[in-house]
Amino acid sequence: MDFRHSARVDALRGQLLAFFETHIYPNEHRFAEEVEANTQAGKRWTPTAVIEELKPEAKAAGLWNLFLPESEHGAGLSNVEYAPLAEIMGRVPWASEVFNCSAPDTGNMEVLARYATPAQQAQWLTPLLDGSIRSAFAMTEPDVASSDGTNIALRIERDGDNYLLDGHKWWTSGAGDPRCALYIVLGRSNPDHPPHQQHSVVLVPAGTPGLKVGRPLPVFGFDDAPHGHCEVTFDGVRVPAENLLLGEGRGFEMMQGRLGPGRIHHCMRLIGVAERALELMCRRLLGRVAFGKPVAKQGVWEERIADARCRIDQARWLTLHAAWKMDQAGNKAARGDIGAVKIVVPQMACDIIDMAMQAFGGAGLADQVPLAAFFMQARALRIADGPDEVHRQALAKLELARYLPPREHRIA
Amino acid sequence: MDFRHSARVDALRGQLLAFFETHIYPNEHRFAEEVEANTQAGKRWTPTAVIEELKPEAKAAGLWNLFLPESEHGAGLSNVEYAPLAEIMGRVPWASEVFNCSAPDTGNMEVLARYATPAQQAQWLTPLLDGSIRSAFAMTEPDVASSDGTNIALRIERDGDNYLLDGHKWWTSGAGDPRCALYIVLGRSNPDHPPHQQHSVVLVPAGTPGLKVGRPLPVFGFDDAPHGHCEVTFDGVRVPAENLLLGEGRGFEMMQGRLGPGRIHHCMRLIGVAERALELMCRRLLGRVAFGKPVAKQGVWEERIADARCRIDQARWLTLHAAWKMDQAGNKAARGDIGAVKIVVPQMACDIIDMAMQAFGGAGLADQVPLAAFFMQARALRIADGPDEVHRQALAKLELARYLPPREHRIA
Amino acid sequence: MDFRHSARVDALRGQLLAFFETHIYPNEHRFAEEVEANTQAGKRWTPTAVIEELKPEAKAAGLWNLFLPESEHGAGLSNVEYAPLAEIMGRVPWASEVFNCSAPDTGNMEVLARYATPAQQAQWLTPLLDGSIRSAFAMTEPDVASSDGTNIALRIERDGDNYLLDGHKWWTSGAGDPRCALYIVLGRSNPDHPPHQQHSVVLVPAGTPGLKVGRPLPVFGFDDAPHGHCEVTFDGVRVPAENLLLGEGRGFEMMQGRLGPGRIHHCMRLIGVAERALELMCRRLLGRVAFGKPVAKQGVWEERIADARCRIDQARWLTLHAAWKMDQAGNKAARGDIGAVKIVVPQMACDIIDMAMQAFGGAGLADQVPLAAFFMQARALRIADGPDEVHRQALAKLELARYLPPREHRIA
Amino acid sequence: MDFRHSARVDALRGQLLAFFETHIYPNEHRFAEEVEANTQAGKRWTPTAVIEELKPEAKAAGLWNLFLPESEHGAGLSNVEYAPLAEIMGRVPWASEVFNCSAPDTGNMEVLARYATPAQQAQWLTPLLDGSIRSAFAMTEPDVASSDGTNIALRIERDGDNYLLDGHKWWTSGAGDPRCALYIVLGRSNPDHPPHQQHSVVLVPAGTPGLKVGRPLPVFGFDDAPHGHCEVTFDGVRVPAENLLLGEGRGFEMMQGRLGPGRIHHCMRLIGVAERALELMCRRLLGRVAFGKPVAKQGVWEERIADARCRIDQARWLTLHAAWKMDQAGNKAARGDIGAVKIVVPQMACDIIDMAMQAFGGAGLADQVPLAAFFMQARALRIADGPDEVHRQALAKLELARYLPPREHRIA
Repeated sequence: MDFRHSARVDALRGQLLAFFETHIYPNEHRFAEEVEANTQAGKRWTPTAVIEELKPEAKAAGLWNLFLPESEHGAGLSNVEYAPLAEIMGRVPWASEVFNCSAPDTGNMEVLARYATPAQQAQWLTPLLDGSIRSAFAMTEPDVASSDGTNIALRIERDGDNYLLDGHKWWTSGAGDPRCALYIVLGRSNPDHPPHQQHSVVLVPAGTPGLKVGRPLPVFGFDDAPHGHCEVTFDGVRVPAENLLLGEGRGFEMMQGRLGPGRIHHCMRLIGVAERALELMCRRLLGRVAFGKPVAKQGVWEERIADARCRIDQARWLTLHAAWKMDQAGNKAARGDIGAVKIVVPQMACDIIDMAMQAFGGAGLADQVPLAAFFMQARALRIADGPDEVHRQALAKLELARYLPPREHRIA
Repeated sequence: MDFRHSARVDALRGQLLAFFETHIYPNEHRFAEEVEANTQAGKRWTPTAVIEELKPEAKAAGLWNLFLPESEHGAGLSNVEYAPLAEIMGRVPWASEVFNCSAPDTGNMEVLARYATPAQQAQWLTPLLDGSIRSAFAMTEPDVASSDGTNIALRIERDGDNYLLDGHKWWTSGAGDPRCALYIVLGRSNPDHPPHQQHSVVLVPAGTPGLKVGRPLPVFGFDDAPHGHCEVTFDGVRVPAENLLLGEGRGFEMMQGRLGPGRIHHCMRLIGVAERALELMCRRLLGRVAFGKPVAKQGVWEERIADARCRIDQARWLTLHAAWKMDQAGNKAARGDIGAVKIVVPQMACDIIDMAMQAFGGAGLADQVPLAAFFMQARALRIADGPDEVHRQALAKLELARYLPPREHRIA
Repeated sequence: MDFRHSARVDALRGQLLAFFETHIYPNEHRFAEEVEANTQAGKRWTPTAVIEELKPEAKAAGLWNLFLPESEHGAGLSNVEYAPLAEIMGRVPWASEVFNCSAPDTGNMEVLARYATPAQQAQWLTPLLDGSIRSAFAMTEPDVASSDGTNIALRIERDGDNYLLDGHKWWTSGAGDPRCALYIVLGRSNPDHPPHQQHSVVLVPAGTPGLKVGRPLPVFGFDDAPHGHCEVTFDGVRVPAENLLLGEGRGFEMMQGRLGPGRIHHCMRLIGVAERALELMCRRLLGRVAFGKPVAKQGVWEERIADARCRIDQARWLTLHAAWKMDQAGNKAARGDIGAVKIVVPQMACDIIDMAMQAFGGAGLADQVPLAAFFMQARALRIADGPDEVHRQALAKLELARYLPPREHRIA
Repeated sequence: MDFRHSARVDALRGQLLAFFETHIYPNEHRFAEEVEANTQAGKRWTPTAVIEELKPEAKAAGLWNLFLPESEHGAGLSNVEYAPLAEIMGRVPWASEVFNCSAPDTGNMEVLARYATPAQQAQWLTPLLDGSIRSAFAMTEPDVASSDGTNIALRIERDGDNYLLDGHKWWTSGAGDPRCALYIVLGRSNPDHPPHQQHSVVLVPAGTPGLKVGRPLPVFGFDDAPHGHCEVTFDGVRVPAENLLLGEGRGFEMMQGRLGPGRIHHCMRLIGVAERALELMCRRLLGRVAFGKPVAKQGVWEERIADARCRIDQARWLTLHAAWKMDQAGNKAARGDIGAVKIVVPQMACDIIDMAMQAFGGAGLADQVPLAAFFMQARALRIADGPDEVHRQALAKLELARYLPPREHRIA
């Protein structure tokens, strides 16, 4: 058993931390100001100059496409090697895109790398890897309980050499971005198949007639501009049959493959969020005086700081082990481990951000520190990619299965 | 012991519930649409027509100024009589103003009713009671830990027949409203006095030179338009000496008088918020099907519903008893009871709203149901009017004082 | 709404508190020593002299049978009047018996007062009210999930003028007491009836052939001597047919009647337990010095003290209201309220006792303070009289029923 | 990063698991019955035959003294290698002694191996390693807050060639065992030194005049016979000066060395306790039917099972990493990590055992399953070896130190 990062990862961590000191932290205010200025100028949904300027720097530094395991594309890092880098990227909400490591593009690239034909890869994967286009992933629907994937109802019908898509999606992340060129869409193509073989995935180019991007949904009061999570309607959207991915009825198979890495990537970043919230909290408590002494020395704060440290460290080891197991045994064998990470990390992050807010008082609710934005992100992940409740049910089933058929245990 | 409401309260509850069915619930979408339309029209910070239209209806129905106990003004209700009415008003975020029962005006009217001279009352209390002006309360400051009131640093200096005010406030609720005519301002006038006698309260008319209303602070991305919680700077603001309230150095004395009722009013409303969140949650869980049956029948939901019911009911009785004690023994004798309510209710509401969000999935984060707005409101109240931590310290001191001087107890 | 106790209750509280100061607290060590001496003398299961000596004092003071509402027997107090007295009695684990207010006799007397024939009452109720005999209640069985009462399997068969009982009970409280003269037994007499009409209650005199009292079950290592919670087997136990209570198949009906008051009585006492644990905790924290100052001033303790106060007060109001509703509307109408009390109070008491243990360090785990015994009592009540989970399910069903049939709510 | 156990550990795990199947689980009832029979025979405080019979088997299997890292004694395992073996041993409360791996002997052997002279080692360490004697560790005192070690007050005075000891200890584990031959005693020898250099450790042979072993203290209702946690008084106890360990005033230095491993060993075992509680819970829930279906399929149970799995796995990784860090960087460098484990694991175990009890209903409180005994063990460890609160304060101080001197952070 060895809890050390590899030398390569240590080096990359060092580079990435240095990049943050030089390029990311100093630009946090600028990002906010640029979005605000764009908004005032009537172009709220515009990519920021700051991110675009930093991308070449990141590429030049070799900090690009760090996320793709087992692939000739990307940096050739395994999941357990990517985890500590993703954690660092999580410390600033908009930073991942600088390194071409932001959702939903990472998951979409992973799908394309695994399941797309060479032609599909040439058309979509190459520019995504290059960062010259963005993409969206359209799965969740407002009209059904999407936590049960078999409910997904968008119709995909074969019509000669085409597929016709009709349905209503929402929470389609990245759809607000004008650079979004590709929608990866899950729908029901074969309603007569068994429940887990009814769905397919189709590639829909942005701008296809009938595809309409609606309003960006707020999370709490945030619209996450210029990224956005949008409603998208498909009204007789027609695409060539070769835009089908992998095969009819194989949507679930691919979704399981896509969602596992996507979930754990979000959680890796959230560990960085939690660490930063704890850092902000400690600095605030040390620097603020009430009732005659630093708040850090008062009341419940030491208790909370210790609990925060215990919870972050536990969540990190759980996550690193799950990533390692994905590398060793595959995403399917690690699905319980990934599920545990998905259950643990967002709630942990929410709780620590909540503590930090309380330490900041009113300032913690507003926008000078990123705590409210952090909370929005962490809270949303208790629902996105499957709500806590569904992941707990799945994990419990795995646990109970170890003891079937029921028999009384020794002693009991 | 009698847990029944008085006949008068039962009648008022009936009236108020009917008013909500007829006038409030049917206008919830209209309110949101009106604010959105105003925003599009470049006038986000404009009072809504819907509230203004409903005010005469409320006045005509006798549902006006229900909050003022022990006063010739208002409806003549005691605190314990007002509580169940405030709870109903809390069910819709903007509803209280319809009945002239919204913060910070209620607390400000209470201060003026108790401490203002007849001339001050004629100038400010009368139009506030009538609903023809709005007011703001400026206490919290960004540069000091305002949870310790003795830190409040805005300078109030006597200069001949005037007072000069210099300082920086924030979270000044209601300052965004163009109808806001009066700022009630706490500052330090007598730095040489003992710590709790250094502060005074001054009445500052809106528009006084040097008073500058800054940006509205967001809470989780919400700016609470058209009400707003703003930064306000005082740069050599000059008001006549007769604008002093009660006397120099008596600021704390009044603030304790003001803050107790203000705190419990917020909590009364939050009980209504929690009840509505529970109702929304139950309806959603009953109506939504996943994995083949209504979600209400699955997993943890019955557990959570039961816990929500237990917590709301407990919090309500705690609140009603505290209100009753304010009526019987005065706000000062009830300060521990009010503190307990302030500790319990916002956290309870946060937790229940959080459950409800989880029941709604993505819909719970966005804006079709008011859950995100409810959360913002409840979460902010774990900080506003004194953070949880400070109230817990104060309550613990009261409890420990019962056992001083320390001696070993029987048996122990 | 009036949160005051009646004058009669205030007087009784004063008397009872004085009785505790004079007679109960000074005898706490004596009780423990007497049980220990009895154990050394080989007679662990012997009623204590200390309780027997105090009973005439309590009777003389009019502090006797305070628990029976709506009855010509007892003190004529309502449930809401009894609650604050039961709370006081709860402060010392063995004290209730001094006032003839201890379980399971109180519940058994209530059953006999409501459902027994005059002859049955003369034989059993009169000596129980007088305190000259003790009784036991045999419901729970080891072989079935007794939380679902319809599982109860002890067979009751009509055999001419007799009933024959065969089965296995456990957790039969009071069966260890040599004065126990009566077993009130729930069993299945009519397996062909609908599920809730299959069970009957039979009165079984102690000493009936075939009735065998087994070992006392420990709870966390405590055997609760000389009271005891025993296994009891019924092996062809024969009683006259007139020992049936009320009628065949009416067992559930009576059990609901018995269990409601029994549950809330336990909870009333647990509130006293929690108050005493908090008192012990505060005294300890004030009197103990570590790292240079009283522990009360350190770390998390003020937070916990405040939370304890908030939770006790909330639980008490919930309990008082439920008791009042039992008085006003009957036990059946109040069943949701009683369920809420049963869910809330034992967990609250466990948590506060747990805090207090932590404040005492090692001393809190041992036996100089009654905290470990308190914990045993409170923890057991999260299972006894129905586990938390079953009460939560029942309460959730009541809550959900308010929103049936499912329809989308306004705004939602 | 590699999360695999070494091949040697995998082999030892396999051996140990097999030993449990063959020798330990089948004897669980026998152990309980033997203690009960001894008690009936008036010899409750007698070592059990079952453990003594199994020791040679364990020795023969090479499963002996697995705990001693960096030592020529013992099995030569590192901390991270010992952890998974200690976890297995924790599954049955009395099992560790079979492998000579039980507290307090392990910690005492570690102290002697590190700090004792060759003569002291020959006299005490050799027979301890051989299992032919037992030992006790006397630190905690009833009269002072022992969580602050500088409070320890037992007087150690030099008197010619002797030391004289006077004082009162309690919670001296193992003192009830008739084989206990050695007391390792912490006391204050140099009251004029700086606070952390006033204390020394002295070796006191059992039977030294003036050393009196008092009653075994119960934890909840358990006396932990035949091991026992006793009061011990030292009344003019005289030992030769060469019984001093290491040097005057060096007690704290050694205690830090002793307590770190002791703490983490307890936690390793508690992870096994928690795993077994979860296993018992799952089996019970699958095998028990209520309201028409297995309890496992109902209500909150899947949620709880998933949470239990998440918490155990997180706690295990935290513990394994801390053990690894002890191996890599030493006990002192790992003190924060050990502290985190001590904070996390006992509470985790308590919570999971508590859930399991609830799943078992009344059976969970009694003694057919070891849950109540498990709870006693886990709950005691929230206090023993330093209460949670003190470990949290220490961990928070380490965390805050990273941000000293206070300065505002970027963005904040």
